[in-house]
Amino acid sequence: MLYIVGFGPGGYETMTVEAVRALEDSDLIVGYTTYVDLIRPWFPEKEFLATAMKQEKERCLLAIQKEEDGRKVALVCSGDSGIYGMASLVYELAARDEALMKRIRVIPGVTAAASGGALLGAPLSHDFLTVSLSDLLTPLEVIKKRIRCAAQSDTVICIYNPSSRKRGDYLRMACEIALEYLSPDTVCGYVKNIGREGEEAAVLTLEELRDTQVDMFTTVFIGNSHTRNIHGKMVTPRGYRLEEEAAAAQERT
Amino acid sequence: MLYIVGFGPGGYETMTVEAVRALEDSDLIVGYTTYVDLIRPWFPEKEFLATAMKQEKERCLLAIQKEEDGRKVALVCSGDSGIYGMASLVYELAARDEALMKRIRVIPGVTAAASGGALLGAPLSHDFLTVSLSDLLTPLEVIKKRIRCAAQSDTVICIYNPSSRKRGDYLRMACEIALEYLSPDTVCGYVKNIGREGEEAAVLTLEELRDTQVDMFTTVFIGNSHTRNIHGKMVTPRGYRLEEEAAAAQERT
Ligand SMILES: C[S@@+](CC[C@H](N)C(=O)[O-])C[C@H]1O[C@@H](n2cnc3c(N)ncnc32)[C@H](O)[C@@H]1O
Ligand SMILES: C[S@@+](CC[C@H](N)C(=O)[O-])C[C@H]1O[C@@H](n2cnc3c(N)ncnc32)[C@H](O)[C@@H]1O
Repeated sequence: MLYIVGFGPGGYETMTVEAVRALEDSDLIVGYTTYVDLIRPWFPEKEFLATAMKQEKERCLLAIQKEEDGRKVALVCSGDSGIYGMASLVYELAARDEALMKRIRVIPGVTAAASGGALLGAPLSHDFLTVSLSDLLTPLEVIKKRIRCAAQSDTVICIYNPSSRKRGDYLRMACEIALEYLSPDTVCGYVKNIGREGEEAAVLTLEELRDTQVDMFTTVFIGNSHTRNIHGKMVTPRGYRLEEEAAAAQERT
Repeated sequence: MLYIVGFGPGGYETMTVEAVRALEDSDLIVGYTTYVDLIRPWFPEKEFLATAMKQEKERCLLAIQKEEDGRKVALVCSGDSGIYGMASLVYELAARDEALMKRIRVIPGVTAAASGGALLGAPLSHDFLTVSLSDLLTPLEVIKKRIRCAAQSDTVICIYNPSSRKRGDYLRMACEIALEYLSPDTVCGYVKNIGREGEEAAVLTLEELRDTQVDMFTTVFIGNSHTRNIHGKMVTPRGYRLEEEAAAAQERT
């Protein structure tokens, strides 16, 4: 059995009950060093195997190999195991063996969009684009087009991987595209180290966000034209107004 | 204290540890009838208050009123409490009282995109649009534009509220827009009753999806041009190829 476990933003209590059970049921837990260090104290009896950052493929191959050796393996990812997680890579690597595919179980988790959103208020109550600013795996032109399309159609934007050493100015670029369509006062937010040491959340305008430096442990939210700052909370209305409630009442009948 | 708790797709085990604790800590749990019926057996000692479907505003006002009466209240939402959940409405209704705002705590959960994605495989490993087909609260033209923009920029689409009695043909409409830009063979999927009785997942082509009827307890996924069907699993690659790994290795140094 190979579990691919999303353990949520970072704290024990933000794991699901099923993630806890899968980790308890495993006899080997494989993950990126930082995450292994985070999780080890919660399961002190377990064997752990840590691999370095960005070695996603090696990590997945290691997990598969150990499973084929007869171990019960859990491969851990932060947040959700599917959303920019390792589930897809594991399936691609396991494609050669249908029996192995059937021994894979993806355990979903609370993704940074949801955990970060909860800290900021309720920015994702309406349609949103989830986009990664990492151009290692996607051409920059495609990323820009996606941001442009979302801003054009007044869609909230939730940004993963907003920055890295070589991409220090990508968030500025994303904000500049958004500013072509949205007011500089558009309500935005970012959340850093959700559920971990150094947790920090800020609500600010799109113009201010443009001039802000964030790191790779940050998730960024750009509101739509209806998003409000309510006493420091970033809130995107679902759109309840009297006329609409009347319409809803009518559909109900 | 007013907790707004996302309890995940439907099973006890897909709640987070923190959601379980918040419900245990509450002395009154408020929610839509179906969800109250689902949760009651897990917390048999608690007092519950159920309100009818679509009465979101009444439900939020009731939760706020009980909190102001001095109760510890949990308002429950399926999935995540922010993503098409009730957190934003509660904040809007609480805006009149900053002290009340501070007594609100949003507890995030596993949203249907993540739990449905895990059942299908790994459809959301790359950028995606989350869009609701309910036009009660959004003009249909805006919904169509968002879908068009996502298809144009080869973004995976995750559809909530794909259908209702009065909107039986909306999924067809969404697929027809997508078909203007994507191949009829594009890999798609849908998941019904995730984590509940009658759970059902299917992987199919965009053309087949167009001619499929789904109900309101379904979440639908339209892949991008890279999404594959691997032994019945819907998998969107993160894009790992040798050249990109070399680039990643370089960025690492
Ligand atoms: C490779 S992605 C992994 C996403 C993860 N699978 C999820 O569902 O949240 C890494 C990005 O996720 C976001 N992220 C993950 N965990 C976070 C946390 N604890 N605090 C803030 N952002 C986080 C950041 O944007 C980061 O750059
Ligand atoms: C008003 S939205 C609530 C979404 C919820 N807050 C979440 O984060 O999953 C209702 C829609 O969510 C999706 N959904 C919620 N729970 C589901 C489940 N258990 N199975 C399938 N779809 C579900 C369906 O698309 C449904 O029409």
